Amino acid sequence: MNIGQQIEERLQWLGEFGKDPKGSVARLLYSREWRLSQDCLKDWIESLGLQAYFDETGNLFARLEGSEPGVVMTGSHIDTVRDGGIYDGQYGIVAGVLALAKLQKEHGRPLRTLEAVAFAEEEGSRFPFAWWGVKSMLGVAGKEDVANLVDAEGTTFSEAIKEAGFSFKKNESSRRDDIVAFFEAHVEQGQVLETEGLPLGVVDAIVGQRRFTITLEGEANHAGTTPMGYRKDPMAAAARCILEIDETARRLGDPMVATVGKLEATPNTANVVPGKVAFTVDARHTDRSILESFTRALSDMVAKHCAACGVSGDIEMWMDVAPVPLSGDLAELIAAQCDKAGLRYKVMHSGAGHDSQIMASSVPTAMIFVPSRKGVSHSPDEYTDPQSLAYGFEALTRALHALAYDPERDFQKL
Amino acid sequence: MNIGQQIEERLQWLGEFGKDPKGSVARLLYSREWRLSQDCLKDWIESLGLQAYFDETGNLFARLEGSEPGVVMTGSHIDTVRDGGIYDGQYGIVAGVLALAKLQKEHGRPLRTLEAVAFAEEEGSRFPFAWWGVKSMLGVAGKEDVANLVDAEGTTFSEAIKEAGFSFKKNESSRRDDIVAFFEAHVEQGQVLETEGLPLGVVDAIVGQRRFTITLEGEANHAGTTPMGYRKDPMAAAARCILEIDETARRLGDPMVATVGKLEATPNTANVVPGKVAFTVDARHTDRSILESFTRALSDMVAKHCAACGVSGDIEMWMDVAPVPLSGDLAELIAAQCDKAGLRYKVMHSGAGHDSQIMASSVPTAMIFVPSRKGVSHSPDEYTDPQSLAYGFEALTRALHALAYDPERDFQKL
Repeated sequence: MNIGQQIEERLQWLGEFGKDPKGSVARLLYSREWRLSQDCLKDWIESLGLQAYFDETGNLFARLEGSEPGVVMTGSHIDTVRDGGIYDGQYGIVAGVLALAKLQKEHGRPLRTLEAVAFAEEEGSRFPFAWWGVKSMLGVAGKEDVANLVDAEGTTFSEAIKEAGFSFKKNESSRRDDIVAFFEAHVEQGQVLETEGLPLGVVDAIVGQRRFTITLEGEANHAGTTPMGYRKDPMAAAARCILEIDETARRLGDPMVATVGKLEATPNTANVVPGKVAFTVDARHTDRSILESFTRALSDMVAKHCAACGVSGDIEMWMDVAPVPLSGDLAELIAAQCDKAGLRYKVMHSGAGHDSQIMASSVPTAMIFVPSRKGVSHSPDEYTDPQSLAYGFEALTRALHALAYDPERDFQKL
Repeated sequence: MNIGQQIEERLQWLGEFGKDPKGSVARLLYSREWRLSQDCLKDWIESLGLQAYFDETGNLFARLEGSEPGVVMTGSHIDTVRDGGIYDGQYGIVAGVLALAKLQKEHGRPLRTLEAVAFAEEEGSRFPFAWWGVKSMLGVAGKEDVANLVDAEGTTFSEAIKEAGFSFKKNESSRRDDIVAFFEAHVEQGQVLETEGLPLGVVDAIVGQRRFTITLEGEANHAGTTPMGYRKDPMAAAARCILEIDETARRLGDPMVATVGKLEATPNTANVVPGKVAFTVDARHTDRSILESFTRALSDMVAKHCAACGVSGDIEMWMDVAPVPLSGDLAELIAAQCDKAGLRYKVMHSGAGHDSQIMASSVPTAMIFVPSRKGVSHSPDEYTDPQSLAYGFEALTRALHALAYDPERDFQKL
């Protein structure tokens, strides 16, 4: 069985934890199926001849001890969204563990210690808090941030962590500060690689995102008895804004994206001119200054179109996540390894959030993307073919080898 | 007490039938409160010295017998929408009954018989069938059209009519063919009269209307990982269509109106490019050929914007009601009476449907509008000031007098 098939088989196995009869996976933080999957992962890691251990909060680590100080880490998250698939997060764990096993088998003990992590949580699907795994590992979030959060069933975070057999960190000293580099292999969750016919992406930045709700208020009126000139129609104003949002994003050019995904009209009745229309805008770019100028453009266009349509407008920005540049050095290292192995790739940004964006604030970090069929993710239809899984594994293994085994490398500089 | 106050007081009284504690009126066809209101109206009519009778289906008539053949009729509908007010329909009944009482008192027996009708139903609020009252009176709808319709509680129309103590017409002979003219006084349900500072509208046409649902299908995609150039975004296409619908209606000019009142995006989530957007278009005009050319323009613009955005589009026309010209002779007669009395008015069309549009296909018909405060209707906030109620009453009474008492008038020609 080749490595692509091995990875695919292991993902199918892991996908059984939390799978419903229709084939969707839901493996929410600290649930019974979550705990079972981490326990079984630990057994599998040990069966491969690697050390395995949990930290206090439930992050699981495979470890291959090196002779020098410092840890080169790879991995991703074990939790899924509700109604999710078997690749998102899980691929990065399986590829990482198998990479360590292969490196141990072929090259023995490394200079740098290697670890592959299954982060407890990234998706924010159970509690209204995302990236718990990596944040608790790095000590950038703790008990005070999450203890009193409540899930949909009314269970508190404190109760959930206890039920799963874990606890909050007792003190600062358990914060990880020994990691010198982090790699994350992940499915693209977009269709750029598939469309361009490329097997790999080397990711050097994660977009920032801002989300807005724009509420336009006019006057609900009878659709038949209100002449056009008498209307204060927020739907007409919304249409003008949405058109200009689309045009503005296209004019700013890649990697700018802006999406109006949600729109609610009130009263939402065929024969009534709406009194209110509210819609969301999701704007992303790798450059914060462009997000800022987009925000100003949004404000100007809402004012302009509201004035033209006689309605009032309000813009609420309810999310503002800064773009995260990843490590150029590590991205170049991955690219160089791909070149050496004859693997084609594209240096690209990520339009979605990942554990790597939290890691990157503390540790040099880069990502490896493999294609997602039709760009689908967060769905049971998520799929990446075994050949692509294998290419991603090869790029990751080579990058880990370069950092952990090469005696020529200056580890102080990476 | 002046006539405006009298009308206002009688409307308040009538509004008690079916009023809920919050002040909204719901008087649905054949309900207990509907039956009670018709019975009490009958008593009131008789107390004014007029004859009163029901037809088989529950239309109530006040009658002032003339010496010559033919009936000049006025009136409107007694039913309301759910959560309605006390003017829509009800004003035309109260003004009509009081007009007959005044004419009898001041001028005695007319040449033409005068009748004021409280039609059983116009709104279509209980069963999915509108204009039952006037249609059953004229014999253009009967048992076969409604008997098996079911209301929200599962009651059939047949059961409801029986419970209210009425029945379907037994034969064709009960069809009314003695009516020579029909006038309907009604609240405008728009804000043209209020905005232009005019107390009266003389209505010579009722708009036709077409309603469409336009469904645009693209591809649901991740808002972060899908570059603008890769999108098939039905929201962007919808915005372009809605903008052009608005511009097209304005370019066609009054009385063209087009409204996008309802829009549903799927999955309607901030961080997902929608896969589908469906919206309604309500288009109205007094000229059928303009509605037809608007329909063609709609088809062209949907095709154009879908092609530009890479989505597919479907247009379903689910309502097509032809415009109804009212009687120019009767509109002129009302206008001449207003001129004589020094009442200012605007000759206008109706953007909403009325009993008159059914009457007009059988009988010369015209309407008199009084202003609606802020254009509000189908709401407990519906309001017309007593002075305007009085002006409408005066115009109606003069028009009825001209047709029923003037010995010079050629009744064959009206």
